[in-house]
Amino acid sequence: MRAVVTVKVGGNVLDDDTLCSLLLDSLASLGLPWILVHGGGKCATELSTRLGIQTNMIDGRRITDAATLDIVTMVYAGLINKRLVAGLQARGINALGVTGADANLICARKRQHPTLDYGFVGDIARVDVERLLAMLHTKLYPVIAPLTHDGRGTLLNTNADTIASELASSLATALGNSVPVHLIYCFEQPGVLRTLDDSTSVIGLLTNKEYEELKRSGNITRGMIPKLDNAFAALRRGVTSVNIAHARALSSFTTTPSIGTTLTLA
Amino acid sequence: MRAVVTVKVGGNVLDDDTLCSLLLDSLASLGLPWILVHGGGKCATELSTRLGIQTNMIDGRRITDAATLDIVTMVYAGLINKRLVAGLQARGINALGVTGADANLICARKRQHPTLDYGFVGDIARVDVERLLAMLHTKLYPVIAPLTHDGRGTLLNTNADTIASELASSLATALGNSVPVHLIYCFEQPGVLRTLDDSTSVIGLLTNKEYEELKRSGNITRGMIPKLDNAFAALRRGVTSVNIAHARALSSFTTTPSIGTTLTLA
Repeated sequence: MRAVVTVKVGGNVLDDDTLCSLLLDSLASLGLPWILVHGGGKCATELSTRLGIQTNMIDGRRITDAATLDIVTMVYAGLINKRLVAGLQARGINALGVTGADANLICARKRQHPTLDYGFVGDIARVDVERLLAMLHTKLYPVIAPLTHDGRGTLLNTNADTIASELASSLATALGNSVPVHLIYCFEQPGVLRTLDDSTSVIGLLTNKEYEELKRSGNITRGMIPKLDNAFAALRRGVTSVNIAHARALSSFTTTPSIGTTLTLA
Repeated sequence: MRAVVTVKVGGNVLDDDTLCSLLLDSLASLGLPWILVHGGGKCATELSTRLGIQTNMIDGRRITDAATLDIVTMVYAGLINKRLVAGLQARGINALGVTGADANLICARKRQHPTLDYGFVGDIARVDVERLLAMLHTKLYPVIAPLTHDGRGTLLNTNADTIASELASSLATALGNSVPVHLIYCFEQPGVLRTLDDSTSVIGLLTNKEYEELKRSGNITRGMIPKLDNAFAALRRGVTSVNIAHARALSSFTTTPSIGTTLTLA
């Protein structure tokens, strides 16, 4: 194996048929083994609304109650995951759609918090990297929905950015220095922006120091912070490269990546 | 491999928590490699109703339009499949939930009919038995939702009884006489009944000849006919044994099966 690429694709890309199709084309022609982690998109919220299920937010965080867990299981593991798999199969890529419960790939613990109950939300405890590598060795391409399980029969909602970061980190640990592990967050922006709402202000190279400054000055969208925290965590845990880029840019990805924003610890 | 068991579980079992739990216990203690194929259950109909999506029936057959395909993808591949997988994982069984699109396991053709359009309904064209056997060899237990794909990006709704029959038949062909292949249809009745609505009238051994007579005399529930047609087809294609039994009886299954109704061509 020359290298492994973990690609995370966000909900806004999945919601855009043209962009999603482009992403699948890029994955099909990437020429390296990859693992895709996908997020949710508007589908889950739309279905909740149509079913009259209220979205409970505490402290700006979505609470996953039993009804919401069912919704995300249907939408993430069912609709979105299988559409991606069928789309990849149509491109000659032997995709295998899974959640963390399948093949016991990702075990998690129900999130504990001193005062809040997040409901069925899982923090990752263990990733079965050997199984994922075995899949890649037999030319299967894992497509992972953002659900994990506790090993005791309960599915848990888990952030897709975090899954991607943990997967890439675990791959890097397992493979050592012998095989480069690349992590790419694909979304609907050209990269991390220096000026909010100015899509021409992409930061080509973002150091950890500059990121901390951006956070302090508030010059970064709130939604980007968990993504970037996850991204820098992966770098610290040995992932070879982390890029944050427009889904369209994936077609230009090479093993010396420079698409969108390239993160660096230096 | 001593033998392979293909188990099909129907919707009424899935809808009953106690029975479904018993079934998972039985699978966990079966002691033989198995593949589970599951049906739908009330969930899909309930979700359709809640969303105001009409079930279109033509000639007594459900038509799978685009909205219905989304519903069954969510319910079968999402909710039901992942609940079964999580439940099996909790029992120490390394289950892998898939559709026919995943790993390109089951390719199908959109059903052609001279006058009717069944919509997104697929007739099986090819099963990748080698991949399924490879999964079993690495101690992965496939849990198959009743969806296939056409290889061109479209998912197709496919009858679970038919999938189970085709799978078992393909396994029998691939394995020849060296490894017995057993097929069990688990449902909420103790077997095929001689007298409708009399659950004590189970036919222990059903010959093909007797089945044809039951069909002619109308002494068989309409819903049983496709199941039995599929079951006898599997026997003709080399499957070692076919049983139709209550889900509860699976725990008594042995390699000389006698649970519920045992079918025979003789």
